[in-house]
Amino acid sequence: MGRPGRRPGPTSSREDILAAARALFAEKGFDKASIRAIARRAEVDPALVHHFYGTKEELFVTAVEFPVDPALIVPQIIAGPRAEIGERLVRTFLGVWDDPRAQPRLLGLLRSTTTEQGAALLREFVSATILNRVAEVLDVPRLNITATAAQMVGVVMLRYVLAMEPMASASPDELVALLAPTIQRYLGG
Amino acid sequence: MGRPGRRPGPTSSREDILAAARALFAEKGFDKASIRAIARRAEVDPALVHHFYGTKEELFVTAVEFPVDPALIVPQIIAGPRAEIGERLVRTFLGVWDDPRAQPRLLGLLRSTTTEQGAALLREFVSATILNRVAEVLDVPRLNITATAAQMVGVVMLRYVLAMEPMASASPDELVALLAPTIQRYLGG
Repeated sequence: MGRPGRRPGPTSSREDILAAARALFAEKGFDKASIRAIARRAEVDPALVHHFYGTKEELFVTAVEFPVDPALIVPQIIAGPRAEIGERLVRTFLGVWDDPRAQPRLLGLLRSTTTEQGAALLREFVSATILNRVAEVLDVPRLNITATAAQMVGVVMLRYVLAMEPMASASPDELVALLAPTIQRYLGG
Repeated sequence: MGRPGRRPGPTSSREDILAAARALFAEKGFDKASIRAIARRAEVDPALVHHFYGTKEELFVTAVEFPVDPALIVPQIIAGPRAEIGERLVRTFLGVWDDPRAQPRLLGLLRSTTTEQGAALLREFVSATILNRVAEVLDVPRLNITATAAQMVGVVMLRYVLAMEPMASASPDELVALLAPTIQRYLGG
């Protein structure tokens, strides 16, 4: 795969691609880091990047160890009766964040938003893979999508980062009862 | 004021008290840092702390350069018809955060929550001076107060930290139209 003078081999290429992806995502953000540029940095063919890691989104999920696959989560929220989208979104969201395998990494990614770069990276990834897709399907104003994101990001801050009671210890059912009607109003159409 | 061997004087005492307050708030959090302990650290009489800086809350506002005085903001939100509390809260909140004199310092304080200590300090201060008072007057479940805080903290994250569009550029009126009914449902009683 065109790396003369160095020992080739799939393991080395796999790792080179991940390292190149991490570097380029950090430097250029999610939108501007192309598979082509990542391949060039890793000195491999772009086809090999796709072969190992799939789409740019899937490569990002692997490279930054994003603990949730938006391609699985988004359909879960969008599917089902529109009249229950508020409840589905809140339950799915809490299910991901309450999961002790995902939570530490998600908190780490949230902390990375304290730099301009980290903020841009997470903003672009979440926009491209979650918000834009939800907006496309639901046909509500884009501002309503961001109001939904704001409510849920705030829950993350109070429940998991600041550990503010009683939000921190509330059961998923209590939170669904309180928050689902809010999200329903934003996304119900 | 009992500091033998050092040049006394009001200027020096004022600064010593602020330095002691910053150190003790950082070490012990807002709840556990007492005026008595701050006075002891600054080698002054507790009465002098009150004389210069008022209550512990007022001392905190000065010491960490908290750019908003909760003693002014809270009555603004609570006063007026209960049926309009959602709109009043959203307008007051956006007025504070959109103010270019307050915003940089507020963002700095928000970033300090990435440490355990910073998170505890801000949580305790905001609980003691804003959330508890609002809860007392409004007689709604405490979880509703934290859901309100979550919605508004999330707006801060998307509008000011992540600069996610269209939330970042939306007018206060657009945000009031979208968010006030949410807050009204949480706090309307």
